[in-house]
Amino acid sequence: MKIGIIGSGVVAQTLGKAWLGQGQDVALGTRDPNKLDDKKMFATSLREWQAQTENRGRILSFQDAAAYGEILVNATSGTVSLDALRLAGANKVGGKVLVEVANELDASKGMPPRALAAQDRCLAEKIQAEFPNLKVVKTLNTVNAFVMVNPKGLAGGDHTVFVSGNDAGAKAQVKELLQGFGWADILDLGDISTARGPEMYMAMWIRLWGATGTGNLNMKVQR
Amino acid sequence: MKIGIIGSGVVAQTLGKAWLGQGQDVALGTRDPNKLDDKKMFATSLREWQAQTENRGRILSFQDAAAYGEILVNATSGTVSLDALRLAGANKVGGKVLVEVANELDASKGMPPRALAAQDRCLAEKIQAEFPNLKVVKTLNTVNAFVMVNPKGLAGGDHTVFVSGNDAGAKAQVKELLQGFGWADILDLGDISTARGPEMYMAMWIRLWGATGTGNLNMKVQR
Repeated sequence: MKIGIIGSGVVAQTLGKAWLGQGQDVALGTRDPNKLDDKKMFATSLREWQAQTENRGRILSFQDAAAYGEILVNATSGTVSLDALRLAGANKVGGKVLVEVANELDASKGMPPRALAAQDRCLAEKIQAEFPNLKVVKTLNTVNAFVMVNPKGLAGGDHTVFVSGNDAGAKAQVKELLQGFGWADILDLGDISTARGPEMYMAMWIRLWGATGTGNLNMKVQR
Repeated sequence: MKIGIIGSGVVAQTLGKAWLGQGQDVALGTRDPNKLDDKKMFATSLREWQAQTENRGRILSFQDAAAYGEILVNATSGTVSLDALRLAGANKVGGKVLVEVANELDASKGMPPRALAAQDRCLAEKIQAEFPNLKVVKTLNTVNAFVMVNPKGLAGGDHTVFVSGNDAGAKAQVKELLQGFGWADILDLGDISTARGPEMYMAMWIRLWGATGTGNLNMKVQR
């Protein structure tokens, strides 16, 4: 399957490399696809990433990546996601699934960053409202990039990931992608408004990271 | 030990009964201690509660309960906690520990209730700021009343509870109270500002409750 990832940072690179390893076709969409040598925060340059993927991973503009993907992923920083999707022309790509993994974090007042999500500020809802053609599924925003693609590397995979979205078929497709990474406990929270839960949880995640000293953590929902 | 619980709803009643069962002395503080027969939401009347505790549990005014307790508990509804603590004269009780278990929830727009916590709206921080004499420790707000006092009743107790507070001695005292209920995995998140995490998590808890159909749930932090 062709996967078009909007974004080119650590999350985009990690998801992209993992899917390439499964034999999927992947393009990363970036603001300027000619800037292959820029250093990325927590990640390699895009030229290095391409080399690591034996040049199978494509680097395209936002717009070309959105056109390329049969399924799309929003892996931009949450504070710029709406802008990136506008630049990608996401309103013109038809009824594609958008796997929405972003968080709105603000590091402008220092570390730890502040999670900006709130009852009346949910990124996934805003994206779904502005791009009603897309089938938005919020998922994976509750773990870091390394846990996203290798859940079994933490506690043998005995922890939980969530999906929120209005379209049952889209959620089923996303569940298959999650299972492809090894996720076993996938909890469907409901429609896209339930994404407020995992987005506001980011404020908790940041404290768990601070208290445990590792970002390789996740919650197991005991019920 | 004498425990003064500000509040008389299901959380106050459940905590109080559990501590009485351990041989502690407990007073519930309520707005009007003469209204023993009022029906409480999700809970019994205070007269029934007293009968269930063989009349060992005291029912006092907010102010008398705050004076009575060697350790205090805020088990009011989060939206009225500051008012209740003002009525209790909490600024005049000296340097007591306040176990702060409340959540600010708004059910005025229907169910599920909306978690009002946000980066700039943290109840525990507001309480600590207004009552600097108290040693506020946020804990237990991430689980329902039944899990609070009987963690082993869920997944054999294999899940996590959190403490946030500025005073290490107060946190140590609260940890002992938690261990008395059977809590084994107690994670110290840091100072009182870290209570933003567990408070904002409430938005997630509400969705977990909706998705699983049970409030008898909690997270285990895998790390």
